[in-house]
Amino acid sequence: MNGAESLIKTLVASGVEVCFSNPGTSEMHFVAALDEVDGMRGILTLFEGVASGAADGYARMAGKPAATLLHLGPGLGNALANIHNARKGNVPMVNIIGDHATYHLKYDAPLTSDIEGIAATVSADVHCSQSSGDIASDAVNTISAAGRNKVASLILPADVSWNDNPNELPAAAPISVPQPVDEARIAEALELLRSSDKSMIFVGGDTVSAELGHQLSRVAQHTGSRLCLETFPTRVSRGAGRAQMEKLPYLAEMAIEHLKDVDTLILLGATSPVSFFAYPNVPSVLQADGCTVFELATADHDLLGTATAMVEALGADSLAPNVHPEQIPPAPSGELNAMSLAQSLSALLPENAIVVDEGATTGLACYPYTETAKPHDWLSLTGGSIGWGLPCAVGAAVACPDQKVICLEGDGSAMYTIQALWSMVREDLDVTVVICNNQKYNILDLEFTRTGARGGVPGEKAASMLDISNPSMNFVELAQGFGMQAKRATTAEEFHQFFSEALQERGPRLIEAMVPCVQIA
Amino acid sequence: MNGAESLIKTLVASGVEVCFSNPGTSEMHFVAALDEVDGMRGILTLFEGVASGAADGYARMAGKPAATLLHLGPGLGNALANIHNARKGNVPMVNIIGDHATYHLKYDAPLTSDIEGIAATVSADVHCSQSSGDIASDAVNTISAAGRNKVASLILPADVSWNDNPNELPAAAPISVPQPVDEARIAEALELLRSSDKSMIFVGGDTVSAELGHQLSRVAQHTGSRLCLETFPTRVSRGAGRAQMEKLPYLAEMAIEHLKDVDTLILLGATSPVSFFAYPNVPSVLQADGCTVFELATADHDLLGTATAMVEALGADSLAPNVHPEQIPPAPSGELNAMSLAQSLSALLPENAIVVDEGATTGLACYPYTETAKPHDWLSLTGGSIGWGLPCAVGAAVACPDQKVICLEGDGSAMYTIQALWSMVREDLDVTVVICNNQKYNILDLEFTRTGARGGVPGEKAASMLDISNPSMNFVELAQGFGMQAKRATTAEEFHQFFSEALQERGPRLIEAMVPCVQIA
Repeated sequence: MNGAESLIKTLVASGVEVCFSNPGTSEMHFVAALDEVDGMRGILTLFEGVASGAADGYARMAGKPAATLLHLGPGLGNALANIHNARKGNVPMVNIIGDHATYHLKYDAPLTSDIEGIAATVSADVHCSQSSGDIASDAVNTISAAGRNKVASLILPADVSWNDNPNELPAAAPISVPQPVDEARIAEALELLRSSDKSMIFVGGDTVSAELGHQLSRVAQHTGSRLCLETFPTRVSRGAGRAQMEKLPYLAEMAIEHLKDVDTLILLGATSPVSFFAYPNVPSVLQADGCTVFELATADHDLLGTATAMVEALGADSLAPNVHPEQIPPAPSGELNAMSLAQSLSALLPENAIVVDEGATTGLACYPYTETAKPHDWLSLTGGSIGWGLPCAVGAAVACPDQKVICLEGDGSAMYTIQALWSMVREDLDVTVVICNNQKYNILDLEFTRTGARGGVPGEKAASMLDISNPSMNFVELAQGFGMQAKRATTAEEFHQFFSEALQERGPRLIEAMVPCVQIA
Repeated sequence: MNGAESLIKTLVASGVEVCFSNPGTSEMHFVAALDEVDGMRGILTLFEGVASGAADGYARMAGKPAATLLHLGPGLGNALANIHNARKGNVPMVNIIGDHATYHLKYDAPLTSDIEGIAATVSADVHCSQSSGDIASDAVNTISAAGRNKVASLILPADVSWNDNPNELPAAAPISVPQPVDEARIAEALELLRSSDKSMIFVGGDTVSAELGHQLSRVAQHTGSRLCLETFPTRVSRGAGRAQMEKLPYLAEMAIEHLKDVDTLILLGATSPVSFFAYPNVPSVLQADGCTVFELATADHDLLGTATAMVEALGADSLAPNVHPEQIPPAPSGELNAMSLAQSLSALLPENAIVVDEGATTGLACYPYTETAKPHDWLSLTGGSIGWGLPCAVGAAVACPDQKVICLEGDGSAMYTIQALWSMVREDLDVTVVICNNQKYNILDLEFTRTGARGGVPGEKAASMLDISNPSMNFVELAQGFGMQAKRATTAEEFHQFFSEALQERGPRLIEAMVPCVQIA
């Protein structure tokens, strides 16, 4: 058995069964090993940012990491933005990065690169394997380091792949089981919640499940607290029958207003709220001066176990959680815009759908509008690096082949990783992509004003940096170029019809929704 | 004047007049400053890999760096692969990377990232500016560090952009002037060349100009040496009237054969030849055992000055360089394949054209076939990271608006940075893109065999990782989706006609050449 084969066996034995891949010459023995070893599904992508974003989406829905297979430092560089998003969202990922043979590195061939240096910027653990005899146990360490919510990277020199591994395979990596926080800390949090009538539980972490929402709703009701979700949750189960929760607004000014009456903030998996960007004369910290912030549990803890312990300590088991009713709106008519698009989404969303939200300004209306739709999962852009949505939808659909994936995607964001459409077709994934095409980086138009640059009014050159209407992109032609069925909708009726058709069929579809820019400021 | 304005003034004063940009919120004051300060051309790209590749192409042709404007660590990550290619090709680049405001970093907002860590892996110099009063002098240092052939990166926190710069602007960065090597070293090299009848001058560096080629031809003739170009030259002036030079083959086995009789290798701007990848049982070092390798000049030296000094020392000024005659082939007919495509290229190549070669296996025939075409410049993929060609063509066309740019592009490579087509249309660049569509990562098929993995024969899963025919991509539809005129050619006659039309018109055109896979092994 060569090193590559022992590596794949170890990955599979440890539950890493999907590898999103962009191989090159240095990875050919790993690629060859896919046929020699059972159990690993290799999924080819046309660009490494698709591979890492897909690994993110897969892990969010599968609850365990996928692997990526990347080609030296440049391949890792291409993957970096979506690895960043995963890291910020507490999503596990196992990166396998091919390198030159160990003895070849000293010659500084053209693709020689500082892989460890690049990987260290986004990884909880980086290791470069030095021999075929070690690669399997190295992989166990990497998978263990990834655990349930970390990025870990293993560098695989070509000769470590191709030489024989003479050793027995090690035991598989242990499954990472998070622990609830201790009783004393829970008691402290409950005391804080009870002693204030202006308290808030601020929840985040890798998954806010239906059960977690229900338990927290009981705690909030019993202690008279507010319950609020972080701005960009990694994964939240929501819709009819799920707990009602506030969500912290994106804009710092609105978030400050949202938190201004809170004097006690209990963090559960979320970090203390901060402004997404800095702006002149706007505070970075969003809670009010003097607000007590108590970190009850980090994203590393067992959040459901912690919430359940709180419910038990309060004796609140029998309280009914405060959940959303089901309210399905009628089909919209007239202009296709953010509101009518959101109305269609809410009206048609199938049960157990997975919504991947990179809809930017157009997508903003979709979240509140779908609160009372059929129950579903919602995935958000956790690290702020656009080009995540389409790849994430690939991975979510691979993880959950029996659930419809709906990807809300801005036109500007879509262009970062448009190659993901090809992988959707190749793997026949059940994804409906909705491109919100307003022909602008509309969020930047808003942000330009908010930063106060040039009095908030862009000049001609600046305006051209925010505008993507020249030339205008045609996403129907782009999708068809990747072999994907696609339609363009220009009215609410058209969108509703096309969206309904896409949901009733199985397989990849794209709808280009021609929408006006949302005016937010 | 705020920090951003003083930065742009300093860039322009130092000759950095083009900025390939993907701005985000943290860069809005820089964007605003484009209207407040004269002389900077901002060129929007849809993806940072296009920006860095375009900066590479611009610098190769302009002989001075462009700037990139990137959005924090993830934006830099997206740009990294093409920065790597520039670095390996001795191409200068000035990266301006926006960051959070200095006081905001400690809150670890979602886009907070280790920018310095990432930049350090590809930059000769990295600096994070700490105040608006320093940013202009920091920029002078960064531009100086980039000089004529290095990558340098300047991190620009948002508050450094927006706060006032109370200081006088510093003097512009001095123009970097390379030095020829000293006389003693030249004498040593000449002695080595004269004392061997199996010597070779191996040339590389950032530009092999017509003049440099002519001088080296004189030296080679006078000393009875061979003259050989490195495998992937950054920029070489070639065609009719240019010096005849060998080129070291890509495949290690062929390169070893090419060098086997050489006992004295004189390096001029090139590094010692090594195998591009390692393969089991193939040496990394390509020259014969016992061959004397003498590094006469690095890429940092004045290569033309060095060669001229050699000619003078030899008294060889009056020797006529050994140049290619002009031999223009007729139009091809029949099957469209690598050979007939190369024949069309050679027949139609306009004088002073710039050929950007990322044509992979199909492009291999084009280089030798165009030796006797009209004189032109040829740019190669220097760092081995694919997704360079289309962006490089953008930059080359911006630098040289009066020269036709021809981009030979593989289908697999094209998909890494296909967004470059949009920038070609937006800027109305005079680029003809030829997509060599064989629906395969054909180079990897070859490399699979060469690595000997699985006896050189891919299994079903491995074969699927090398195949991009399912679904097949349609580059005409993709181009049209970006607003670009495009045609598909399936015969040699069609290709010749479409290519001829594209060359006679001005502006961006794409031709999808449907070609069979080249069989190399």
